[in-house]
Amino acid sequence: MSPFTGSAVRTPGWEHLRVEVADGVATVTLARPEKLNALTFGAYADLRDLLAELSRERSVRALVLAGEGRGFCSGGDVDEIIGATLSMDTAQLLDFNRMTGQVVRAVRECPFPVIASLHGVAAGAGAVLALAADFRVADPTARFAFLFTRVGLSGGDMGAAYLLPRVVGLGHATRLLMLGDPVRALEAERIGLISELTEEGRADETSQRLAHRLAQGPALAYAQTKALLTSELDMPLAASIELDASTQALLMTGEDYAEFHAAFTEKRPPKWSGR
Amino acid sequence: MSPFTGSAVRTPGWEHLRVEVADGVATVTLARPEKLNALTFGAYADLRDLLAELSRERSVRALVLAGEGRGFCSGGDVDEIIGATLSMDTAQLLDFNRMTGQVVRAVRECPFPVIASLHGVAAGAGAVLALAADFRVADPTARFAFLFTRVGLSGGDMGAAYLLPRVVGLGHATRLLMLGDPVRALEAERIGLISELTEEGRADETSQRLAHRLAQGPALAYAQTKALLTSELDMPLAASIELDASTQALLMTGEDYAEFHAAFTEKRPPKWSGR
Amino acid sequence: MSPFTGSAVRTPGWEHLRVEVADGVATVTLARPEKLNALTFGAYADLRDLLAELSRERSVRALVLAGEGRGFCSGGDVDEIIGATLSMDTAQLLDFNRMTGQVVRAVRECPFPVIASLHGVAAGAGAVLALAADFRVADPTARFAFLFTRVGLSGGDMGAAYLLPRVVGLGHATRLLMLGDPVRALEAERIGLISELTEEGRADETSQRLAHRLAQGPALAYAQTKALLTSELDMPLAASIELDASTQALLMTGEDYAEFHAAFTEKRPPKWSGR
Repeated sequence: MSPFTGSAVRTPGWEHLRVEVADGVATVTLARPEKLNALTFGAYADLRDLLAELSRERSVRALVLAGEGRGFCSGGDVDEIIGATLSMDTAQLLDFNRMTGQVVRAVRECPFPVIASLHGVAAGAGAVLALAADFRVADPTARFAFLFTRVGLSGGDMGAAYLLPRVVGLGHATRLLMLGDPVRALEAERIGLISELTEEGRADETSQRLAHRLAQGPALAYAQTKALLTSELDMPLAASIELDASTQALLMTGEDYAEFHAAFTEKRPPKWSGR
Repeated sequence: MSPFTGSAVRTPGWEHLRVEVADGVATVTLARPEKLNALTFGAYADLRDLLAELSRERSVRALVLAGEGRGFCSGGDVDEIIGATLSMDTAQLLDFNRMTGQVVRAVRECPFPVIASLHGVAAGAGAVLALAADFRVADPTARFAFLFTRVGLSGGDMGAAYLLPRVVGLGHATRLLMLGDPVRALEAERIGLISELTEEGRADETSQRLAHRLAQGPALAYAQTKALLTSELDMPLAASIELDASTQALLMTGEDYAEFHAAFTEKRPPKWSGR
Repeated sequence: MSPFTGSAVRTPGWEHLRVEVADGVATVTLARPEKLNALTFGAYADLRDLLAELSRERSVRALVLAGEGRGFCSGGDVDEIIGATLSMDTAQLLDFNRMTGQVVRAVRECPFPVIASLHGVAAGAGAVLALAADFRVADPTARFAFLFTRVGLSGGDMGAAYLLPRVVGLGHATRLLMLGDPVRALEAERIGLISELTEEGRADETSQRLAHRLAQGPALAYAQTKALLTSELDMPLAASIELDASTQALLMTGEDYAEFHAAFTEKRPPKWSGR
């Protein structure tokens, strides 16, 4: 637990997600397979709060976000979300859309890498959750569909109009967000939307292997790499280079950098402490 | 016509472009085939003014920009533009270059999607016009050439040094703008410069089909998707997510979102009003 | 020599690099082949100072950065750099990391195109040097490894977390910087990290040919193209278009633009003066 924890207590149980933590790897599973893991208000809120809680703890060093059953996530539930929002007032509509956006911010800002493990459909909010992750490990059945315009909404949902052009370029991003057409794994890999394409049925296994590799690595180095990648998308070159210099000077005083040098000199693998 | 129209009257006729509007689709054709549709001062000015005028009207929901004859557009006319600029004073040179830039801003800022229908050459200003469009539909004869340095000018013309790295990445953009070498359709597709590659001779037909699909869709959702894609290239992540939340809350009060839910419930296709 | 040179004298000799200038092309060779051209404090300082010095001179119009022996550059020397930094105080660590960042700024800000000629390994700081160049000409033996996290440091070193997402997109950049795994030439080309892939053993020859082509071209047009590409990554669209207009108006008063028109009219190739 971080020393910078105040009175907040751990949430005793996550009702809208399945959460397992082992060996520094948190595995978060969307587990409503009968609804293709469609998201409810509770699931969004739990994702936001879980990521905030895990960010305060030192025990989690990598997180896998997966979906149970036939696909990853079909997006916001048509009945429970679209139906409900139709009778909301202005303030409630803002609150709902801010909450979904906070999930994406939490994914981008948590200090550990997030791996989306993808098979079958990743649609709507499910596609944006995957997009916000640091790694997208997918099998050949995976397909993305940013289908917001298909329900009469803006393709720029939860940061998608910010993130997607920075991942696949403005041309592909415009096509995907404007039309909402499905993008299958092969095309997704070609345009840079997939980090690693696995054999069919192997996305979860590969994601876990990657998560364990990251969890055993230099956690602070990974955290700063992620923070710089996220921050420098919004920074000019000269300031980015100054931030890099400052960050690197800091990490050069850390335990893991000294450990690397000792291990290299002694011709043995380093034992990372993440400090 | 938008209620926010003042005393401005419609331009009675476009002398430097062929303009047709049908079923919500504006088709703008560069029609100087004997000169490979080289642009004149009048053509630039007409493109700028036409896009402003169409942006005030509710009737246009998608625009196709095409070229008659052997290619799309060979760029600024060597005699009528390069020759003329050589005797201009400083203020006139600025005016000319601002006008060409205003065309690109108009393409990026108009509230309907713009589809560049490409075959044969798209060179110089023609390549940038295509680059500024939301969709680039091209047949295998299409080739791009950002040949500004070939005439002794900067590759950053009309926003090209801003847009191209955001479409194809900084590495390819540097090569294309610095050298001005032609990029053929196959490579253009590989690097993300083409939205859809068609069979030979089918770019116009495919562009029209896409334009009609867009014109029959949820126009306000498309307009906001385009506005967010354009704006969020220049915005940080947190502000983009806030803009998305605000935009989505607004569209959730619109007619098309309610119509989607009604249609989904009644198991029928939605009838989009664009409101 | 630029008229804007004061009292500074030319460095009489570059001790940590091999530097040759001929026909407007500077060839800078990392020449410690027995150490795979690992960088020392002196090599970083020389790269920084050399680029500043060449930027003041009118004689250099293109620069090739190459590596002697089995590879391009294995990065910072483990003994001479990692070992030495372990006993540095905070101010010295900042100074060192600022110096390496200044090399990248110098590469991005010098007024001539920089071509990285790549074969074998480009690792750590060597990978970032290549990334900062305008062109990456590589043969099939070339491989990149941004292996900073492998030594316990941040993947965002010397601007890598700024530059790499803008070259290959955020997804690939995250994978490369977080994991530090090698990226071979074929994948590097697929994701846009290589400008031109040559036959084996032909990177230097191809780089020289490209450098000579650039050195014989319109130098001011190239310099402004590079400056705009670098600047407009950090600028909004409207301001970029204004900068383009202003730059183009300026270059339209230059000698090379008039020379192009004269040559075109006389049906002869232009003779570029670079003014």
